[in-house]
Amino acid sequence: WVFLWEKGYQEKDSVVSSVTTKAKGVAQTNTSQLGFRIWDVADYVIPAQEENSLFIMTNMIITVNQTQGTCPEIPDKTTVCESDANCTAGSSGTHSNGVQTGRCVPFNGSVKTCEVASWCPVEDDSRVPRPAFLKAAENFTLLVKNNIWYPKFNFSKRNILPNISTAYLKSCVYDAHTDPFCPIFRLGQVVESAGHSFQDMAVEGGIMGIQVKWDCNLDRAASLCLPRYSFRRLDTRDADHNVSPGYNFRFAKYYRDLAGQEQRTLIKAYGIRFDVIVFGKAGKFDVIPTMINVGSGLALLGVATVLCDIIVLYCMKKRFYYREKKYKFVEDYEQGLAGDTEQ
Amino acid sequence: WVFLWEKGYQEKDSVVSSVTTKAKGVAQTNTSQLGFRIWDVADYVIPAQEENSLFIMTNMIITVNQTQGTCPEIPDKTTVCESDANCTAGSSGTHSNGVQTGRCVPFNGSVKTCEVASWCPVEDDSRVPRPAFLKAAENFTLLVKNNIWYPKFNFSKRNILPNISTAYLKSCVYDAHTDPFCPIFRLGQVVESAGHSFQDMAVEGGIMGIQVKWDCNLDRAASLCLPRYSFRRLDTRDADHNVSPGYNFRFAKYYRDLAGQEQRTLIKAYGIRFDVIVFGKAGKFDVIPTMINVGSGLALLGVATVLCDIIVLYCMKKRFYYREKKYKFVEDYEQGLAGDTEQ
Amino acid sequence: WVFLWEKGYQEKDSVVSSVTTKAKGVAQTNTSQLGFRIWDVADYVIPAQEENSLFIMTNMIITVNQTQGTCPEIPDKTTVCESDANCTAGSSGTHSNGVQTGRCVPFNGSVKTCEVASWCPVEDDSRVPRPAFLKAAENFTLLVKNNIWYPKFNFSKRNILPNISTAYLKSCVYDAHTDPFCPIFRLGQVVESAGHSFQDMAVEGGIMGIQVKWDCNLDRAASLCLPRYSFRRLDTRDADHNVSPGYNFRFAKYYRDLAGQEQRTLIKAYGIRFDVIVFGKAGKFDVIPTMINVGSGLALLGVATVLCDIIVLYCMKKRFYYREKKYKFVEDYEQGLAGDTEQ
Repeated sequence: WVFLWEKGYQEKDSVVSSVTTKAKGVAQTNTSQLGFRIWDVADYVIPAQEENSLFIMTNMIITVNQTQGTCPEIPDKTTVCESDANCTAGSSGTHSNGVQTGRCVPFNGSVKTCEVASWCPVEDDSRVPRPAFLKAAENFTLLVKNNIWYPKFNFSKRNILPNISTAYLKSCVYDAHTDPFCPIFRLGQVVESAGHSFQDMAVEGGIMGIQVKWDCNLDRAASLCLPRYSFRRLDTRDADHNVSPGYNFRFAKYYRDLAGQEQRTLIKAYGIRFDVIVFGKAGKFDVIPTMINVGSGLALLGVATVLCDIIVLYCMKKRFYYREKKYKFVEDYEQGLAGDTEQ
Repeated sequence: WVFLWEKGYQEKDSVVSSVTTKAKGVAQTNTSQLGFRIWDVADYVIPAQEENSLFIMTNMIITVNQTQGTCPEIPDKTTVCESDANCTAGSSGTHSNGVQTGRCVPFNGSVKTCEVASWCPVEDDSRVPRPAFLKAAENFTLLVKNNIWYPKFNFSKRNILPNISTAYLKSCVYDAHTDPFCPIFRLGQVVESAGHSFQDMAVEGGIMGIQVKWDCNLDRAASLCLPRYSFRRLDTRDADHNVSPGYNFRFAKYYRDLAGQEQRTLIKAYGIRFDVIVFGKAGKFDVIPTMINVGSGLALLGVATVLCDIIVLYCMKKRFYYREKKYKFVEDYEQGLAGDTEQ
Repeated sequence: WVFLWEKGYQEKDSVVSSVTTKAKGVAQTNTSQLGFRIWDVADYVIPAQEENSLFIMTNMIITVNQTQGTCPEIPDKTTVCESDANCTAGSSGTHSNGVQTGRCVPFNGSVKTCEVASWCPVEDDSRVPRPAFLKAAENFTLLVKNNIWYPKFNFSKRNILPNISTAYLKSCVYDAHTDPFCPIFRLGQVVESAGHSFQDMAVEGGIMGIQVKWDCNLDRAASLCLPRYSFRRLDTRDADHNVSPGYNFRFAKYYRDLAGQEQRTLIKAYGIRFDVIVFGKAGKFDVIPTMINVGSGLALLGVATVLCDIIVLYCMKKRFYYREKKYKFVEDYEQGLAGDTEQ
């Protein structure tokens, strides 16, 4: 019955939670543009801290040593030109990298494009590196620290359980079967648990949800109130309608050159944002909801009476006899009464 | 009736959502302090990525080449001094820019202020630039990518609808009448739809809410489950009580000069934060809520009986006759029974 | 009775809120590593803006002038070596700072550790500074601006109340007794109100919740709808199970040296994140919920009838007599009817 099934005798409360995350891991890359380079957590987590999520850069298009100046646009339908007449000084489209100067200049030997005032040289993001630049991110780990609080019951707990020691926390990795309460997740495993390929996702980026569920029956021991982790890809995944996939954004590191001029390194960062979503309900026996639920349960029993009446009086063949018996015709009494007063 | 109106026969679920945002647009400025300069997305979006919101800088007070040192404070009621006796070494008020050294030094030809140890020269934010420095931000665009998921029904959808092509997405701009499903918003239009002036808001900053509503009746076709956009200014707007208006914060870009000393450019950034707020409910026919709602509906019908009884028995003139008929006085029977046993 | 107590005659609505925060305050430090230095808001708030929270750095481990290169690891169980045979080229543990080159090199006079390719020199975070580096953060202040909106009633209000003047806002500090509506909080007081020591918390960091409660009865004057502030430490606090306490993260400031090589200053930042949590419910008289609640209230009265019946008919000694009276045996009628048709 619903009353027992839904624990109607308990007062309910929703979880209040705080989350902190911390990534660990080192990757090395070796490209002609940047040479041999080591990437650590301060390099690939952007911004350094967020409230409930963490972005890990897995791929990038880097444009070094940009300065303010004028240069030819990247060639595309709207920027290729044959003469200055094709370019409009001062115009700037939604997708352009700068403001046109009105001149048509050679982009390379064969193509001419409109010149723009912008950070030069402009970024060429037509080709996304494949495989992902930081493909080693698959083995990075993510520590999720989560404290919950049920205000009504003043019950609080954290996902680093009392029986977890510092030594265990240093070496464990979450596994649904062997280590279901270790709060350290290997990124590759998180993505795979959600049914996706990490290396595919790393190329264009995406959003992963790490769901922490705290369903607690506080009538039982507090040690039975445990977090359950599950993983889900939150952005789209329909391969057939793949408009504007993935997740990326641009940021820059600013420098001064020897002459004091401002330079910057522009990075178009593709990566995976891990959103930690905490939810849960706690229940505890309480007199008031018990009374109310018992009450409405019985009220529903009362409905049975009404239903029986309806069936008996309106639906059955011999309904006239029942009706006669059910309703005592008060009008008779009124007439009788009238007769009485007339006497 | 409430049952049909509120769709009481459906099971309900609340939306789980993930949001990413991306701004596009270029602005040019030409000031005596900075010269001709182009601003692109890496310059005016701070920080580069956030979970459900995006800040676009529209105005700024920039203080270049600050170094650690000592310099006179900006003159105001508490910092103007006549001699060292007015300044207290080591003191630091809530609104001061540094720690006082105890000396009184000339700020300019006519005014003397207390000297502070701080990043020097100190910022003078007494005058906010009008019109806004990056007033061209009105024409910037904001792409909002939103994926929703109704866990109970395992129904997911994104706001880039299946019929939107890459070409359309490259050129469309949201318009409530002509393009209600284009997820690209012109900033000026967002602010105006909420009934405010973009150029006014750009000067001191503010918070705009972009609300995405997904109310879905999943008994009908999935293609009818569509997002509805609306816009609202979330910060205050009562012109008559204009204490501490707008939105601004300070950040710095750090450099090293030739001698290896740390320098920074301090920016007090005024701007508009766009918070994307996703809400919605989905409903689908399910047996259990139908039963419960039908049940309580009928229970309420039962109430009608009780109400009739109350009216008839206590409120009407001839109530005594009805009462007599309603209650069969059981006491008579007891007496009769007592009589029987006595026999 | 529940109806009046829970204000069942009111329609309810949950709060929609926007929050901005702003810290103020200056600290000075004097260490052998950094010399005399002033820290202001652009230095210790990271990142510069967030949606509902603000991080204030209170302690730090700073590693200056890191460059890409090779250097010995910090000695611990896994990195101490005696010869190259103990080190594996290309390996990289979860907690290591770089990728091993396979060589065993002297860390200092007495200890040899495996060499890694990484940002060098590597960070030594074995000792957290005590007392906290920026212990003066206790006197920093935090301005919380909060606008709320109840969509159903189109009622909006901000926590800077109409009677708060600019002059008051410049000088006030929140105090539960004397200034309960001043939205400026001294950090030390926030932590102490939650029953913790600021200087203890500053060393390893933590999460503080600033709760703003807006419970409004909109049947009464709007000026009685006021915010109530309370403070709570959101991260763990059980001293006996102190695994992985506090809150910290790493970020870096990037520079170019004279030769154009990239350098960085790595900072492991310990600090307090202030999460602003806004909640509340507003109620206003409305006909429909009144009707529904009156209805179910009366339905519960109907339950009384059913309960009486059950007690009387099944539990009392003389139940047979009552049952006889309650149920009019319809079968008799059927027999009578059958008799009639046989005639």
